[in-house]
Amino acid sequence: MDYRRRINELASGIEGMGLDGAIIFGPENIHYLTGAPFVRGGYGKILFVKEDGGASLIVTDLDYQEVGDTVDSAEIVKTDFMERPLDRLRKIVKDSPRLGFEEGIVSAALKEKIAGEFKLEPLSGLIERMRERKDADEIALIERAQSINDRAIEKAIESMKEGMSELEIAAELEYHLRKEGEESFAFETIVASGPRGVYPHGMPSTRRPSRGDAVVIDFGAKYGGYCSDMTRTIFFGNPDGEVRRAYEAVKEAQERAIEFVRDGISGREVDAAAREVLDRRGLGKFFVHGLGHGVGIEIHEAPVVGPSNEKPLAPGNVITIEPGAYLPGKFGIRIEDLLVVENGGKRNLTRFTRELIVI
Amino acid sequence: MDYRRRINELASGIEGMGLDGAIIFGPENIHYLTGAPFVRGGYGKILFVKEDGGASLIVTDLDYQEVGDTVDSAEIVKTDFMERPLDRLRKIVKDSPRLGFEEGIVSAALKEKIAGEFKLEPLSGLIERMRERKDADEIALIERAQSINDRAIEKAIESMKEGMSELEIAAELEYHLRKEGEESFAFETIVASGPRGVYPHGMPSTRRPSRGDAVVIDFGAKYGGYCSDMTRTIFFGNPDGEVRRAYEAVKEAQERAIEFVRDGISGREVDAAAREVLDRRGLGKFFVHGLGHGVGIEIHEAPVVGPSNEKPLAPGNVITIEPGAYLPGKFGIRIEDLLVVENGGKRNLTRFTRELIVI
Repeated sequence: MDYRRRINELASGIEGMGLDGAIIFGPENIHYLTGAPFVRGGYGKILFVKEDGGASLIVTDLDYQEVGDTVDSAEIVKTDFMERPLDRLRKIVKDSPRLGFEEGIVSAALKEKIAGEFKLEPLSGLIERMRERKDADEIALIERAQSINDRAIEKAIESMKEGMSELEIAAELEYHLRKEGEESFAFETIVASGPRGVYPHGMPSTRRPSRGDAVVIDFGAKYGGYCSDMTRTIFFGNPDGEVRRAYEAVKEAQERAIEFVRDGISGREVDAAAREVLDRRGLGKFFVHGLGHGVGIEIHEAPVVGPSNEKPLAPGNVITIEPGAYLPGKFGIRIEDLLVVENGGKRNLTRFTRELIVI
Repeated sequence: MDYRRRINELASGIEGMGLDGAIIFGPENIHYLTGAPFVRGGYGKILFVKEDGGASLIVTDLDYQEVGDTVDSAEIVKTDFMERPLDRLRKIVKDSPRLGFEEGIVSAALKEKIAGEFKLEPLSGLIERMRERKDADEIALIERAQSINDRAIEKAIESMKEGMSELEIAAELEYHLRKEGEESFAFETIVASGPRGVYPHGMPSTRRPSRGDAVVIDFGAKYGGYCSDMTRTIFFGNPDGEVRRAYEAVKEAQERAIEFVRDGISGREVDAAAREVLDRRGLGKFFVHGLGHGVGIEIHEAPVVGPSNEKPLAPGNVITIEPGAYLPGKFGIRIEDLLVVENGGKRNLTRFTRELIVI
């Protein structure tokens, strides 16, 4: 990863905004700019970037060894024992410069705390816009993370059998994700069968799918700090006609939307393509979420692929296409692939079949 | 769970602060107050609580089914398709009341967005102080989550053998966590062997522990929405004298600190008890983090068990005791138990041995 290039690009952006520097708190943004490892929920690293490209990463003893072995695009500054990174930042920043900050990440309380000492200005999505367009190194990691998904779901399906619970299905799948090289989970695995399938975020439970049940399985591996994301709906025994028709409708909606994906088309238009198919098949009102989202260091990042996003997609965007139908009291179905937007088209990173699978 | 009691307690607190109500955005706080399921990273539910105890939970179509089947302590308000929960909140809140908000959770940008419409006042940790003292129902769930850990590590150790990679160790452990009933992970599993053990947050890698290596394994199950947390350091082949002495020192430090835990003693004092043992054994400077933290709906919550916390522990606090020693270039060791503070003492929820284990 060319972290130096990223920090320089940020520094140019900062200069272009007439700022003297930026204070970065978001662990995902710090990872993007330096490669510093992070744990979800963060642990108070602070990255200080100056408009001339100088960068200091303030870390506590806890993370000093790992950051020191990993990061070379910024000076590593270790706090003294129990000193807070913010106190060390105060010693580093001289005079009273105008500094950009992540107004969508920094809490109201933290902002108030530091606003007295630094002249703060919103960064207004400067880093998010950089992260939205993945470079070749990032796409390679996401592709690898997705290939872990593809191999793991194939092996997990081989071991699935009637009588297993949702928890046991998750156990098999996650076991194979690890064996295929997953470094950590991109998000909490969803396994939701039969009527529980109408919970788009349903965590696995002790429920054992009955014959004919649809089982929504939504999961993702992280590799090299980057996420992947995939959903398949698998059947335990032959589904009845209504479920089968719904599956075919969701599949058609997904295929139709994927055809539309290219640079220059908006997230709203791609979403509409899928929605039109489901409307025509009488399932539009059961498609209760947007079509997809960007994926990268975070499982949900820009761009949104849904009715609210009029902005054209651009090469390097990595997005999910995941139409669904959720029939209250009955069943849920969702099929999700991961795509990279390219000049004049796209590449589907998901290789696993979307044909109907019966266990 | 008695969610009604919690909302009433919050309403009293709001009234006591002279406020007309509160807007709650934090998914963990909403879960605590209503039982509403949530995915880490959140999806924009909003809970509006009035000083008279009235409560409305605003959800999108996406979560409506699951929330509707789960929550009965608040009125469920569904947004229209693509309507943002915040827009619906504006329609619900009449006049211009003074409302508390979570100043440590709400971003600076979101605060600015809503500060124009509502008179906002910081809640100043009102909900966090409630969450810090767990009731019997909460402790039962955490105890169950910890018993899942205890059984899973025992089974995982049975399947560990020389030549396995850190990733394979994680695969075995997580497989058994699921089989024992884990609903989701409390956090990303840490497996760090040999010199990687000096990374307190080291994610599992393809490294295969060599003979004599210490392997730090830090993991936790969620059950019923509550986290557990546990660390053991296992040896692949007999450790040499230096490693063995360090293990015994960390173990003694942990045992000493656990003896100190009771209501009325501060986190600082408990931390000092462990630190004193490691100092005496010449390892104090390698203990680079605080001794522990509170555990509940979040893996890290109040109270801190470290030098910065002078406040006395109280019955119902659930805390980790996890001293460690990290010798750069050599090895890391950590042992962690989960305790509930009781009147005049504590109960250790961790049953698994802390004696040295050699694979």
